[in-house]
Amino acid sequence: MIKVIALLKRRPGMSMEEFKRIWIEEHVQLSAQMPGLRGYRVNIALPTQQDDVPAPDYDGTAELWWDSREEMDASFKTEIAKTAGLDADRFSSVRQHLLTEEFVVVSGPASSPKPIVR
Amino acid sequence: MIKVIALLKRRPGMSMEEFKRIWIEEHVQLSAQMPGLRGYRVNIALPTQQDDVPAPDYDGTAELWWDSREEMDASFKTEIAKTAGLDADRFSSVRQHLLTEEFVVVSGPASSPKPIVR
Repeated sequence: MIKVIALLKRRPGMSMEEFKRIWIEEHVQLSAQMPGLRGYRVNIALPTQQDDVPAPDYDGTAELWWDSREEMDASFKTEIAKTAGLDADRFSSVRQHLLTEEFVVVSGPASSPKPIVR
Repeated sequence: MIKVIALLKRRPGMSMEEFKRIWIEEHVQLSAQMPGLRGYRVNIALPTQQDDVPAPDYDGTAELWWDSREEMDASFKTEIAKTAGLDADRFSSVRQHLLTEEFVVVSGPASSPKPIVR
């Protein structure tokens, strides 16, 4: 299993509401079609952050899982991935990926009972 | 539910192997004791990243869930949280927190059958 952490910054001048709306209501309908995708979560920054810990310079992150590095590489090379990448330009000006190995320390919370796509 | 995304950079001169060992084998035994913690996952950067997407300047990230902002705030004020914070200085030189709202787009993969702590 491989887990991609994506870090996104919204386009200059875009409100957080618009950033969230496009990503959650529109973009995921494309990106969730990437072949082999085993899980996909999006995390949108809250308006108020902690005041005693530095906040990173991102407005949202995502987690995407594939069964293997090979499955992930093949998935990113498909037309739907390219289309989703172009679509992400509508709401984000910075996108970075960190490929990781995941360790579950405390299990839960369970997946949402009603995932947005499947 | 609130989800904290933590972004960490290892101490200068520390190997990725040591960073991973201290975090996964030692540190989580402390940090997983934070009151009200509903879920905790750690993601360690793989040695080889994508070559066509910028990689962020972090060596690992974590996700931590609480039932509410109030539960999270109270948890970070406890002695065990302070102890865990000091312990994290042993392996990380940068720690940033992003407080987020989570959206599950594609459910799964299920939690690991054997979480490290509980």
